[in-house]
Amino acid sequence: MSFQERLADSKFEEGQLLTLLRLFSLFNSSLDLNKVLEMVMDEVIAILKAERGFIMLLDTKNSELVLSIARNMDHQTIQEDEFTISKNIILKSATDKTPIISFNAMQDPRFDQYKSVSIHNLRSILCVPMLFKGDLTGLIYIDNRIKSGVFREPDKNLLQTIADVAAIALENARSYLKVKNTIKVLANSIEAKDDYTRGHVERVSHYCVEIGKQLGLNERRLEELEIAGILHDIGKIGIPDTILKKQNTLTLEERETMKQHPVVGEDIVSPIEFSQDIIKAIKHHQEHYDGRGYPGGLRGEDIPLYARIVAVADTYDAMTSDRPYRKSVGEDAALKELRQAAGTQLDPSVVNAFMLILSSPKIDA
Amino acid sequence: MSFQERLADSKFEEGQLLTLLRLFSLFNSSLDLNKVLEMVMDEVIAILKAERGFIMLLDTKNSELVLSIARNMDHQTIQEDEFTISKNIILKSATDKTPIISFNAMQDPRFDQYKSVSIHNLRSILCVPMLFKGDLTGLIYIDNRIKSGVFREPDKNLLQTIADVAAIALENARSYLKVKNTIKVLANSIEAKDDYTRGHVERVSHYCVEIGKQLGLNERRLEELEIAGILHDIGKIGIPDTILKKQNTLTLEERETMKQHPVVGEDIVSPIEFSQDIIKAIKHHQEHYDGRGYPGGLRGEDIPLYARIVAVADTYDAMTSDRPYRKSVGEDAALKELRQAAGTQLDPSVVNAFMLILSSPKIDA
Repeated sequence: MSFQERLADSKFEEGQLLTLLRLFSLFNSSLDLNKVLEMVMDEVIAILKAERGFIMLLDTKNSELVLSIARNMDHQTIQEDEFTISKNIILKSATDKTPIISFNAMQDPRFDQYKSVSIHNLRSILCVPMLFKGDLTGLIYIDNRIKSGVFREPDKNLLQTIADVAAIALENARSYLKVKNTIKVLANSIEAKDDYTRGHVERVSHYCVEIGKQLGLNERRLEELEIAGILHDIGKIGIPDTILKKQNTLTLEERETMKQHPVVGEDIVSPIEFSQDIIKAIKHHQEHYDGRGYPGGLRGEDIPLYARIVAVADTYDAMTSDRPYRKSVGEDAALKELRQAAGTQLDPSVVNAFMLILSSPKIDA
Repeated sequence: MSFQERLADSKFEEGQLLTLLRLFSLFNSSLDLNKVLEMVMDEVIAILKAERGFIMLLDTKNSELVLSIARNMDHQTIQEDEFTISKNIILKSATDKTPIISFNAMQDPRFDQYKSVSIHNLRSILCVPMLFKGDLTGLIYIDNRIKSGVFREPDKNLLQTIADVAAIALENARSYLKVKNTIKVLANSIEAKDDYTRGHVERVSHYCVEIGKQLGLNERRLEELEIAGILHDIGKIGIPDTILKKQNTLTLEERETMKQHPVVGEDIVSPIEFSQDIIKAIKHHQEHYDGRGYPGGLRGEDIPLYARIVAVADTYDAMTSDRPYRKSVGEDAALKELRQAAGTQLDPSVVNAFMLILSSPKIDA
């Protein structure tokens, strides 16, 4: 049944229609897959008054359903043999691309053969597939309605319609993630050429976003910062391999060629309709806070903010990762050098923000 | 006023709520910006019963409103001095971020000073801004309700709510387009290295999509084909410049190195959650239909379809564009060679499909 047909069929009340409109607006307000998953999960739990639940997405590579987010249960529970009734409901819902409701799962004759091995005190189960243009893309599972309640038939329709809404937003977020990951992979290839798995680009863009969060930037600006972090060294594509991979000190002339890369980078991205902030970050990430950098010799706050952020992230990652011409100096030495460079090479306030992130336990590049 | 507040405020009937839900589902069903623009424009014209209209989007680079799609009027009309009343309504709507309705534009005291120069037989005008997270992203303009009618106050609310829905979908499509264009630019850089503006990647991916359309593939597959076309030569990043840019014939050993690029390409994209179809297109685009290609020596239909399509597009573009080692052979000679290669190097049915496209006037790479 299509979304249209389901809407026409379901006779939702006005309040439910308004809820569905709110969810459409909410779920589609971000292309960040994790964020969309969290919004969908939390809304489903709240609206259906479920005790616990999870969302699985279909891995397009292996055609497997993969657990993507869960509430009040974990990956282990779902893997357990004793979770058999639920697993069979999931399998049937996914295979038949149809919603399944079990008012009393432990007594449900359809899953009778599994009940003896289920120890999860299951009462009511509701599982609906997510479809995008007719293809299965994932599913939403919830069980045990709060206050000893059970799910009812209208809940099935409501959850299926929410799943229709969620499927669109999740699919768009996944498409966006794939293309963004492609940029990272390509940017890494360009950065490393002979060793495209090093992950410098991922780390720098990750540090940039964390610094941006610390500085209180909004989601749109964090997204821009991530792109700037990914693309900051893109101009290196224009630098000959012989210079880029040289293990000895560069000659003065080679150094001048190397110093072209921010401007070449600006040229490369200029056909793309990026905001000036992103383009300037690429062009000016080698400026120094004291005005001794390149290409503009800009100083202090005249250096665009994103460029000052990329500079800190890039400098730190360059020191803490192995390069052809030298090994990592280690985290402690790198931090010490960052502190010393604050005010000369780097913006002290950005260095401070970065220190705060590194000292908190949550960073995970 | 936020989308939520507007919904709560507007007291839409059930039929209108269902329409808004349908539009949400429709507008967000694609990330193709042109397609979304067409859907929004056509729905707006139909639902509001307008005679003509257009959509402007804010260019993020220059902060200018740019005409993106129009119905029953053209770019020239909108540029004309005589279009002054409408232009002033647009300007006010964008500046104040507020919907504007004029029941009788030629007599509207707010735009009195312009009426003498307007020759467009304007009756009723409705213009609403599109906002994304509070920022202006574009606007929708319609005028002259059909059958000599005029727009009414409730139409203003309805169109503004449709614009809220459209703003989200259009913004997501634009974000997606930006990252996809970034991939094209990077892939071009890798392909050309010293000359990143040549556009080989754009042309090949464009040909791939056109062939796919000719073969009746659905939108999801066309999107995959476009990505495959963009990334087919990505493995060249792993080939040394000295081989890639060599103007003389390659030695046997250099040729063997060069032949690694499809497999290197497969390696590069393997961390991305692409469908196997895309990955196989990259790996197998140098296979020959008669089994004499590489890396697998696959033959006929054993070569994945996308790979056979990329092969035709790539071969044609290689012949019709200038390369370091030789000039373009010209379109006629290239077509002749394609025909000769059908059945040996290339899949005859794909070559046929490509011939049909080239002989039709609409191709525009």
